[in-house]
Amino acid sequence: DFMAGLENDIKPAYGAKEEDIERFMRNGVLMWGRPVQTALDSGDLLVNQVRNSNKTPLVSVLITGAVGCGKTALATRIALDSGFPFLKICSPGELVGFSEAAKCQHLKKVFDDAYKSQLSCVVIDDIEKLIDYNPIGPRFSNTVTQALMVLFKNLPPPKRRLLVIGTSSNKDLLHEMGMEKCFSSHIHVPCLSKAQHITTTLELLDAFTPEERCSIERLISGRSAWVGIKSLIHMVGTAEQAESTMRVPTFLTLLEEEAQLQERS
Amino acid sequence: DFMAGLENDIKPAYGAKEEDIERFMRNGVLMWGRPVQTALDSGDLLVNQVRNSNKTPLVSVLITGAVGCGKTALATRIALDSGFPFLKICSPGELVGFSEAAKCQHLKKVFDDAYKSQLSCVVIDDIEKLIDYNPIGPRFSNTVTQALMVLFKNLPPPKRRLLVIGTSSNKDLLHEMGMEKCFSSHIHVPCLSKAQHITTTLELLDAFTPEERCSIERLISGRSAWVGIKSLIHMVGTAEQAESTMRVPTFLTLLEEEAQLQERS
Amino acid sequence: DFMAGLENDIKPAYGAKEEDIERFMRNGVLMWGRPVQTALDSGDLLVNQVRNSNKTPLVSVLITGAVGCGKTALATRIALDSGFPFLKICSPGELVGFSEAAKCQHLKKVFDDAYKSQLSCVVIDDIEKLIDYNPIGPRFSNTVTQALMVLFKNLPPPKRRLLVIGTSSNKDLLHEMGMEKCFSSHIHVPCLSKAQHITTTLELLDAFTPEERCSIERLISGRSAWVGIKSLIHMVGTAEQAESTMRVPTFLTLLEEEAQLQERS
Amino acid sequence: DFMAGLENDIKPAYGAKEEDIERFMRNGVLMWGRPVQTALDSGDLLVNQVRNSNKTPLVSVLITGAVGCGKTALATRIALDSGFPFLKICSPGELVGFSEAAKCQHLKKVFDDAYKSQLSCVVIDDIEKLIDYNPIGPRFSNTVTQALMVLFKNLPPPKRRLLVIGTSSNKDLLHEMGMEKCFSSHIHVPCLSKAQHITTTLELLDAFTPEERCSIERLISGRSAWVGIKSLIHMVGTAEQAESTMRVPTFLTLLEEEAQLQERS
Amino acid sequence: DFMAGLENDIKPAYGAKEEDIERFMRNGVLMWGRPVQTALDSGDLLVNQVRNSNKTPLVSVLITGAVGCGKTALATRIALDSGFPFLKICSPGELVGFSEAAKCQHLKKVFDDAYKSQLSCVVIDDIEKLIDYNPIGPRFSNTVTQALMVLFKNLPPPKRRLLVIGTSSNKDLLHEMGMEKCFSSHIHVPCLSKAQHITTTLELLDAFTPEERCSIERLISGRSAWVGIKSLIHMVGTAEQAESTMRVPTFLTLLEEEAQLQERS
Amino acid sequence: DFMAGLENDIKPAYGAKEEDIERFMRNGVLMWGRPVQTALDSGDLLVNQVRNSNKTPLVSVLITGAVGCGKTALATRIALDSGFPFLKICSPGELVGFSEAAKCQHLKKVFDDAYKSQLSCVVIDDIEKLIDYNPIGPRFSNTVTQALMVLFKNLPPPKRRLLVIGTSSNKDLLHEMGMEKCFSSHIHVPCLSKAQHITTTLELLDAFTPEERCSIERLISGRSAWVGIKSLIHMVGTAEQAESTMRVPTFLTLLEEEAQLQERS
Ligand SMILES: Nc1ncnc2c1ncn2[C@@H]1O[C@H](COP(=O)(O)OP(=O)(O)OP(=O)(O)O)[C@@H](O)[C@H]1O
Ligand SMILES: Nc1ncnc2c1ncn2[C@@H]1O[C@H](COP(=O)(O)OP(=O)(O)OP(=O)(O)O)[C@@H](O)[C@H]1O
Ligand SMILES: Nc1ncnc2c1ncn2[C@@H]1O[C@H](COP(=O)(O)OP(=O)(O)OP(=O)(O)O)[C@@H](O)[C@H]1O
Ligand SMILES: Nc1ncnc2c1ncn2[C@@H]1O[C@H](COP(=O)(O)OP(=O)(O)OP(=O)(O)O)[C@@H](O)[C@H]1O
Ligand SMILES: Nc1ncnc2c1ncn2[C@@H]1O[C@H](COP(=O)(O)OP(=O)(O)OP(=O)(O)O)[C@@H](O)[C@H]1O
Ligand SMILES: Nc1ncnc2c1ncn2[C@@H]1O[C@H](COP(=O)(O)OP(=O)(O)OP(=O)(O)O)[C@@H](O)[C@H]1O
Ligand SMILES: [Mg+2]
Ligand SMILES: [Mg+2]
Ligand SMILES: [Mg+2]
Ligand SMILES: [Mg+2]
Ligand SMILES: [Mg+2]
Ligand SMILES: [Mg+2]
Repeated sequence: DFMAGLENDIKPAYGAKEEDIERFMRNGVLMWGRPVQTALDSGDLLVNQVRNSNKTPLVSVLITGAVGCGKTALATRIALDSGFPFLKICSPGELVGFSEAAKCQHLKKVFDDAYKSQLSCVVIDDIEKLIDYNPIGPRFSNTVTQALMVLFKNLPPPKRRLLVIGTSSNKDLLHEMGMEKCFSSHIHVPCLSKAQHITTTLELLDAFTPEERCSIERLISGRSAWVGIKSLIHMVGTAEQAESTMRVPTFLTLLEEEAQLQERS
Repeated sequence: DFMAGLENDIKPAYGAKEEDIERFMRNGVLMWGRPVQTALDSGDLLVNQVRNSNKTPLVSVLITGAVGCGKTALATRIALDSGFPFLKICSPGELVGFSEAAKCQHLKKVFDDAYKSQLSCVVIDDIEKLIDYNPIGPRFSNTVTQALMVLFKNLPPPKRRLLVIGTSSNKDLLHEMGMEKCFSSHIHVPCLSKAQHITTTLELLDAFTPEERCSIERLISGRSAWVGIKSLIHMVGTAEQAESTMRVPTFLTLLEEEAQLQERS
Repeated sequence: DFMAGLENDIKPAYGAKEEDIERFMRNGVLMWGRPVQTALDSGDLLVNQVRNSNKTPLVSVLITGAVGCGKTALATRIALDSGFPFLKICSPGELVGFSEAAKCQHLKKVFDDAYKSQLSCVVIDDIEKLIDYNPIGPRFSNTVTQALMVLFKNLPPPKRRLLVIGTSSNKDLLHEMGMEKCFSSHIHVPCLSKAQHITTTLELLDAFTPEERCSIERLISGRSAWVGIKSLIHMVGTAEQAESTMRVPTFLTLLEEEAQLQERS
Repeated sequence: DFMAGLENDIKPAYGAKEEDIERFMRNGVLMWGRPVQTALDSGDLLVNQVRNSNKTPLVSVLITGAVGCGKTALATRIALDSGFPFLKICSPGELVGFSEAAKCQHLKKVFDDAYKSQLSCVVIDDIEKLIDYNPIGPRFSNTVTQALMVLFKNLPPPKRRLLVIGTSSNKDLLHEMGMEKCFSSHIHVPCLSKAQHITTTLELLDAFTPEERCSIERLISGRSAWVGIKSLIHMVGTAEQAESTMRVPTFLTLLEEEAQLQERS
Repeated sequence: DFMAGLENDIKPAYGAKEEDIERFMRNGVLMWGRPVQTALDSGDLLVNQVRNSNKTPLVSVLITGAVGCGKTALATRIALDSGFPFLKICSPGELVGFSEAAKCQHLKKVFDDAYKSQLSCVVIDDIEKLIDYNPIGPRFSNTVTQALMVLFKNLPPPKRRLLVIGTSSNKDLLHEMGMEKCFSSHIHVPCLSKAQHITTTLELLDAFTPEERCSIERLISGRSAWVGIKSLIHMVGTAEQAESTMRVPTFLTLLEEEAQLQERS
Repeated sequence: DFMAGLENDIKPAYGAKEEDIERFMRNGVLMWGRPVQTALDSGDLLVNQVRNSNKTPLVSVLITGAVGCGKTALATRIALDSGFPFLKICSPGELVGFSEAAKCQHLKKVFDDAYKSQLSCVVIDDIEKLIDYNPIGPRFSNTVTQALMVLFKNLPPPKRRLLVIGTSSNKDLLHEMGMEKCFSSHIHVPCLSKAQHITTTLELLDAFTPEERCSIERLISGRSAWVGIKSLIHMVGTAEQAESTMRVPTFLTLLEEEAQLQERS
């Protein structure tokens, strides 16, 4: 049972709200395949660099990947696992209706608070939303963008160490703006791409009946797909509402339409 | 009699105004053809997903279709039929003269109110108007756009479930802005396209005399057209003002001019 | 005598200022040809639709035509002839120096007032000026544009009926902005195009001496022109200032220069 | 003696400042050639139309011509000669540092004041400066532009008559903006183009000694030039500062450099 | 000794600060060649026109030239030499951090003060900086630009005379904006272009030892260069810091790198 | 031991914060090769020009180079070594969340403070960040840009001398804006490009074990790379976290990926 596991795991640091953590990892971090472990390992290495290296009191990492690939959940996981006494997750949802200036003040406050703890972790989730990016124009808040770029590089005061985790589904944008260069490291999160990733996920979620899972496995084995973990979980949720005989077909239709499930070649 | 039926149906939820509901469904939801049922069924499925699935406390659906195809009436219908205790319809008419900031505050308030009920439905009607979209430029309020995008994806607090229904007649715009990706589902509403759709509508509306309807049926049978239900009802309203001998010809002229009524081929 | 006739006609509705009406129809609505009657008839039909049809409590009509073709006078005429208890003519002259926000508030107020009467008519004159349209850029107030688009489509509250008349000399602009689609009907006002239109006008205006009118008739008969009624009246005003022998030649020169009077072919 | 003549002429109307009038016609209106008379005659005709025609209580005229051709002086002359009890000259110099909104309020006030007198004349000098036009961009105040366009066409209240005179050295700009169409008439002011225009001016100004004027006449006779009256007067002012033997050569050099004085062909 | 000479010269007019004058002419106006005298003579002629001509109470001159060619020092010199009782030098340094509106108010105040004296001189230094010109965009303050254009042409009140001196290193920009036409005269300041200009300067500055000057003269004689007086003085300042044997080579290297010193051809 | 050396060196001038200095030179200025000495020498020469030359009370130098090449540390070093009684380092980190106007006020204050000391040094770090430069658009604060350009050239009051040091990793941008011309001198900081630069750095940092350094030397000798000193130090910090057997391989991988380490040719 995931929720139980989660509750045991969480030792909420100063600055983080339990409620937020539950929201950001609603369905946990399922080990659907190798890439999940790779991402968690990279996070671990950087956590240690912050803790141990005298030369680099600031380490910043950018987590990128497609919409719904699990960036927010992974960043939350890494941040929690660091065990740093200060942890703050900053996401666009809490800043709706803030003016550009108010957003900057808020971000500045988050970092100022972090500088007060000897070991801190700040997660800046969904950077392109935080900067109000709209490809039409394009438009975005340059004020917030600049504040972020400066804060990402700003060295903490003497004796303070900081890990910054940023997430974005638009790496190209961050590159063009010169924001990518503000991070010292980078983690890429892939989508699920193999039938086995999907079947593992269904099992871990305990979704459908064992018989249904068997028939799904048979139908998709050997085919490739491209779907974020978040979308996959939504499809499961929808398919489960259909009448019992329609659950598997509905799930497959959704997989074909939205997850680019390919014909066996 | 539609108005009577409507009055029986409505069990106004907390947050919705009876008066608004009458305005948004002035002429009810007539079953002019198959597509109407399909749209209502899809809505039903999503209502159940919100109510039942633990994995997805938030379901958001975008209803698109041509100007006047009946989006607002259908969204209102689905929302009412959910029977969720909280229902709020947010439409541009009530926000005329609001500043961008005030609009954002209002939208934030709507969602905050929704988060307080265990089961809520929020309808955001006419998204392109809410964001002040003008193809010249193009111009639009990026502030409101960003607020909507964040609110559409924002997970409700623990133990709260929410159905968001958005409507727009400009799907391309929403795609370009990346707003389409903020919805987890999509319902497309077509125009009336066959002669039978039109004759069914006239009957359901009890428009013209039975003799007039017969002659219209004869004149358009086997021809195709392309007209939204809202425009069709307006044409009927205009044609009925002409002198008795001119009512049918006037209606046909309007159908030909504005509904792209085609020659029998 | 026009002014006398006007005074008898006017039964100023609540909301309309007598003074404005005189200004907007300074020279009345002269029946210079068939198109004038056609436009007035269309107006009449829509007035009846508002009054009688239960399905369409809101009818909105866009009157378009070249600069000076008589749009404002015709809209005023139709509005007055409706006899609706509430009549408000909203024109750019009264909004000079208003901020965008103040303009929106004013427009909102006009419609809110209209919604209080059971039968109302609102004239929005010179839409491109109201929205501060300038082809260089182009520039315009999107805020006012959006307010108008929403107000033009906003259904009145239960038991209220409303006729909206908009005028513009830039139909293409309104089409591009998607504002044209906000109107349910459309009336186009042509310029005077035949010699007979001009001579009829001169007679109705009682301009020049009968002898002068005869000689003008002789000189232009069989030729075509393209002139708005407003410009024609201005030319008459100018020509009448010349010395007696120069009045007819001056008038013809002006007609040739500004009204595109063509050679007899 | 010009200044004496001027003093006799001026019967300052309500609203006009004597001081301004002196500044705007520093060197009077010299009759350097036929075009000056033509412009003054056209002005006269329009003054009469305002005074006499019942059909057109508002006449507006646009005076255009190259920078320094004498637009401001001519507009002032026509306005003074009208003898209308209200006269107001509105020029950019008095609005330096005004915000866009303050400019609009000022312009509105000028017209509102004019509407209070039965016969009024308002001069709007240097329209492109009033609207802050800059060809780079281009940039300009659309707010002031729109206020002017509306005020130029706004009919005075019943029993009031108004002559509006606008000046601009950028007719193309006004055409592009649709402002040209807001005027009912147009006067074009040419530059001095013949040697005789120049020699007449020198005589009327009593500039140089008679001998110097003779030698200038000999040297330029039969040649063409293109110079505004304002620039010509400036050149005279400069040449008169040179040592006596250099006065004529200096003047000719300036004429050649800045007035495009051509070789005798 | 320059500083001594300067102190004798200055008879600070009302409005000018001694300190400013020292800063603007730190190294005086050295007569490094013919162009310096020509520029000062042109200034003199215009000073007299203001003082003497009744026809032109306002004379405005634009001084242009490359960055560092000595515009500011020359404008200050001409202004001081006029001996006009009112003298005000307006330069960007004193307006850092002013809003656009505050800049306009300041400029308006400068001219209003000037209008109070019978003979005034106003220097507007570095126009492109005053208007915040940035070639990227391009961006600039149109508000300040327009205020300057109007003030440059605004005739002083009766009995007042005014000399306006503007400086700019971007003549093309001023032409494009139509600001060049606002000036009645123009003075162009060239760079030093001949070896002799440079050696004269070194002597006048008493820079290097006589022996060093000799060797420099020998090394550059017959070669051409292109350097502003300000840059030349800076190079001297740098070269003088090198060890004694390196002073001449360092100076030559700088001349070659930055002053485009050419090979003897 | 670097930190000890640093502590001895620092004689914090008025205006500078010790804490800042430690942050800006966290890892000191290591003599990794010839270019470091060249840059420090150039700085020295300019410090002397300020101190000694009467002709040039203001010297301004622009330090440019790739992101992470050590600009900030070098500027801090030169500024500290000047020993000028007033020293102020102005960097974007302290201005996060400031409005454009507030930034200008702050910068103005910094220079005004500097003008109060007889010998001052002002460091303006990371100019492109200070002006909020974003290549998308491009966007930047023209207000801050203009303030900087004016302040960089503004002569200090009599008897005051000032050294301005600016840093930027975008020399092209500064050139395009005309800001480069506001500096009287220029220092370029290169990246480490030879294997020996890297091995010298590792030794100076006392990074890895002597054995590890040997094996690194062997593996990279004769190859070229391109890496800023800041990035190199970060790579060392990361590699040192790996398990002992993985430290050297990890370091080489990072060098290959991010420092463009080339194959021996
Ligand atoms: N291995 C996993 N990695 C990430 N998330 C997982 C994993 N397994 C399950 N999840 C669940 O999948 C969902 C991932 O959603 P999340 O919001 O993190 O995606 P995202 O990439 O941030 O989406 P968006 O691009 O919309 O911001 C969460 O509910 C999370 O609990
Ligand atoms: N099957 C139906 N579906 C939708 N609307 C219907 C249907 N039958 C009748 N109607 C009536 O048709 C009208 C549809 O108008 P509605 O405002 O919903 O269209 P819309 O697509 O939202 O228009 P717009 O694009 O202008 O916002 C309403 O009056 C509604 O009562
Ligand atoms: N048949 C007619 N139709 C319209 N106006 C007429 C007619 N006969 C006379 N007129 C007079 O002609 C003038 C028409 O001017 P009006 O302001 O209505 O034109 P407009 O098209 O609105 O001009 P603009 O494009 O400048 O707004 C009025 O003075 C009106 O009294
Ligand atoms: N015939 C004339 N017409 C106009 N101005 C004349 C004439 N004769 C002499 N003048 C004098 O010439 C000058 C004309 O300057 P004015 O300011 O009117 O030109 P302008 O065209 O308005 O210039 P600008 O384009 O700069 O606004 C005035 O001093 C006026 O007294
Ligand atoms: N003949 C001269 N003309 C001008 N300046 C001279 C001359 N001789 C010496 N100087 C000195 O040279 C310097 C010229 O600098 P100035 O600031 O006037 O140049 P500028 O062209 O205004 O520069 P910028 O384009 O940067 O504004 C001053 O210090 C001045 O005293
Ligand atoms: N020779 C050196 N030159 C410069 N910095 C050095 C040198 N040796 C060691 N360092 C250290 O390297 C780091 C250089 O970082 P610094 O912030 O100065 O780079 P930067 O070029 O300003 O980076 P950015 O482009 O991000 O502003 C500092 O920690 C500094 O102490
Ligand atoms: Mg996310
Ligand atoms: Mg709708
Ligand atoms: Mg009109
Ligand atoms: Mg003028
Ligand atoms: Mg200068
Ligand atoms: Mg730096």
